[in-house]
Amino acid sequence: MEYTLDTAQAGRFEICGRDGAARAGRLYTAHGVIETPVFMPVGTSGSVKALAPDDLHNLKAAVILGNTYHLHLRPGDDLIARRGGLHCFSAWDKAILTDSGGFQAFSLSALSRISEEGVTFRSHLDGSKHLFTPEKVMSIQANLNSDIMMVLDVCLPYGTLRAAACESVGRTTRWALRSLDFAPRERRAGRLLFAITQGAFFPELRAASAEQLAGYDFDGFAVGGLSVGESRAEMHDLVNFTAPLLPADKPRYLMGVGTPEDIVTGIAAGLDMFDCVLPTRNARNGTLFTSGGRINIKRREFAEDDGPLDPECSCYTCRTFSRAYLRHLFKAGEILSFRLNSLHNLAYYLNLARGAREAVLDGRFAAFRARIAEIYGENDSGSESE
Amino acid sequence: MEYTLDTAQAGRFEICGRDGAARAGRLYTAHGVIETPVFMPVGTSGSVKALAPDDLHNLKAAVILGNTYHLHLRPGDDLIARRGGLHCFSAWDKAILTDSGGFQAFSLSALSRISEEGVTFRSHLDGSKHLFTPEKVMSIQANLNSDIMMVLDVCLPYGTLRAAACESVGRTTRWALRSLDFAPRERRAGRLLFAITQGAFFPELRAASAEQLAGYDFDGFAVGGLSVGESRAEMHDLVNFTAPLLPADKPRYLMGVGTPEDIVTGIAAGLDMFDCVLPTRNARNGTLFTSGGRINIKRREFAEDDGPLDPECSCYTCRTFSRAYLRHLFKAGEILSFRLNSLHNLAYYLNLARGAREAVLDGRFAAFRARIAEIYGENDSGSESE
Repeated sequence: MEYTLDTAQAGRFEICGRDGAARAGRLYTAHGVIETPVFMPVGTSGSVKALAPDDLHNLKAAVILGNTYHLHLRPGDDLIARRGGLHCFSAWDKAILTDSGGFQAFSLSALSRISEEGVTFRSHLDGSKHLFTPEKVMSIQANLNSDIMMVLDVCLPYGTLRAAACESVGRTTRWALRSLDFAPRERRAGRLLFAITQGAFFPELRAASAEQLAGYDFDGFAVGGLSVGESRAEMHDLVNFTAPLLPADKPRYLMGVGTPEDIVTGIAAGLDMFDCVLPTRNARNGTLFTSGGRINIKRREFAEDDGPLDPECSCYTCRTFSRAYLRHLFKAGEILSFRLNSLHNLAYYLNLARGAREAVLDGRFAAFRARIAEIYGENDSGSESE
Repeated sequence: MEYTLDTAQAGRFEICGRDGAARAGRLYTAHGVIETPVFMPVGTSGSVKALAPDDLHNLKAAVILGNTYHLHLRPGDDLIARRGGLHCFSAWDKAILTDSGGFQAFSLSALSRISEEGVTFRSHLDGSKHLFTPEKVMSIQANLNSDIMMVLDVCLPYGTLRAAACESVGRTTRWALRSLDFAPRERRAGRLLFAITQGAFFPELRAASAEQLAGYDFDGFAVGGLSVGESRAEMHDLVNFTAPLLPADKPRYLMGVGTPEDIVTGIAAGLDMFDCVLPTRNARNGTLFTSGGRINIKRREFAEDDGPLDPECSCYTCRTFSRAYLRHLFKAGEILSFRLNSLHNLAYYLNLARGAREAVLDGRFAAFRARIAEIYGENDSGSESE
């Protein structure tokens, strides 16, 4: 296995084409070039669930996520550092983006408490007490050998009142600047550092957050705090409002969102990078994304369906098995079902982003978007079922 | 995918070499030639648990098992027949051996009842009532497009008294002959038919069973009813006693057994074919077979072990990942753990049978056997832990 490490170019971002606000770009990392728009499969605990690195290579994934919270608690980022970092440990030689762990510290842990210093929380595994500070999560991500590090941010639940949201914007900015102060050595080693904008569902706070951060030398800017329970329209409105406020010459990352239509909406607004557990989590529930829309493979109508899951897809699952067999595996609770379904759903999402990129370069993104909206718009069951 | 179908040669069995009682052979089926001794991975419900057909191809498996009981109940052998049989349905183009379903009808089902006609039982899935007769299980196996069909036999629990065991031997023979009467059309289509000898733990009944069946034109002969709770010594004694009683010019199959040492003992006694859920079931429990013996990957000693699982193995798992990573996957409950562990354990078992074959052909089987006994003999934890 080859672990390319081109630290000299790391952080360079080229925009190769535009179509409206949508962009096609290239982001250089120490572990290869990421063509954007890009979908990034989520590998929470050092494994994209049910898949091996060779599966992800076959899907031509360029970057996967690792979760700082999960890996810090188990097996420990220090243990991973002693193995040479997450690439060596998990045998993945392309890029890795790690989140800051803040979202999980707030959402998975009981008794999380926030102060100016950082977030104190108890492990959901064994109840042990931990403190995440902006500096601490940088050093954890460095231990993981992350290519793209995210700053610690303040994550708010849906329905947070304006005063609390306003306070959290200021703190998120201060934490981002502490991260920036802490990061020079890591960035010289080729790691990128992305800031996260917050502001809950108040446009003026979103604007303030973007404005406070945009002037600083981050390698990219993310939109955080979405997909937390809001309506689809509300989310799309905020995406459209926020995207143009982020620096145009840097990669823009929409965190943890969403359905195929959400992603294409984000691309249309000028966002470049996307991650979500939806394709893999849905795969394990039997909900599969196809060029004709969502299907639930457990439905009786597929019992004797000899066609491929998605006739327009060329993934191993679609090339090899019938819907009838995939339904059988799911109904029988076979472990193989998780792998084959995950493989296909990720193929769908990765191809969606690649298809959007080609459409942008060919100047036909509007038609591309309209087609996805037709399939995955109003009629799609949306995020609420996941 | 190519589904070779060479029905003209099907059933031919060549013995290529002998070393003591151990044999190296070649069994021709409608879906390829099986080199013996051979280990056959178990694909209960149309999938070798956690693995895809490409995994099994990479492991160079020549034949896998399908379970008549499970596939009859779900998704139904008629449904599979309408899909073109189990090869087409599950995308497996090499040989398939199907059991008769009798063992599961006795062991999985509550309320199974036996008569001269067959076995009546209730499905463990929905309680529905079913009758397996010798003829019925032949037609189910034909629906599955089985390459090697097994006759329905009477399976007895450990501790059965002599009188009942004696009666069951006669019935097993009568059922085997009914199967033979029913099978000519299927055999002309290239399917092989194997008889099963029984007799519980009474050598004279084992001898009677073998004698009653040996004169008939079956394509192979199996030893059934072992690994049901007896001691290892008792099982080995019976294997050694029974093997030479089966026709020498036909393949001999030891059903559902066992540890690496059990298999090598069977080979030494002159048996050719083996299947067992042990490697895949143990894999899912984190127990892994290596050239140095069994290890349990969840043990703390492997937390920082950067070496391969088995330095003598060249499977994907051993080529790609460290023990430290495999331990992490297991502890984190990652689905990938099941696949990587299963892949390796099957590689171990398939290589064990292949290694035995080479040793027989090279006239060094005694040394091969001694080495396995040293690693997996007295000191091995044996079957009781599985």
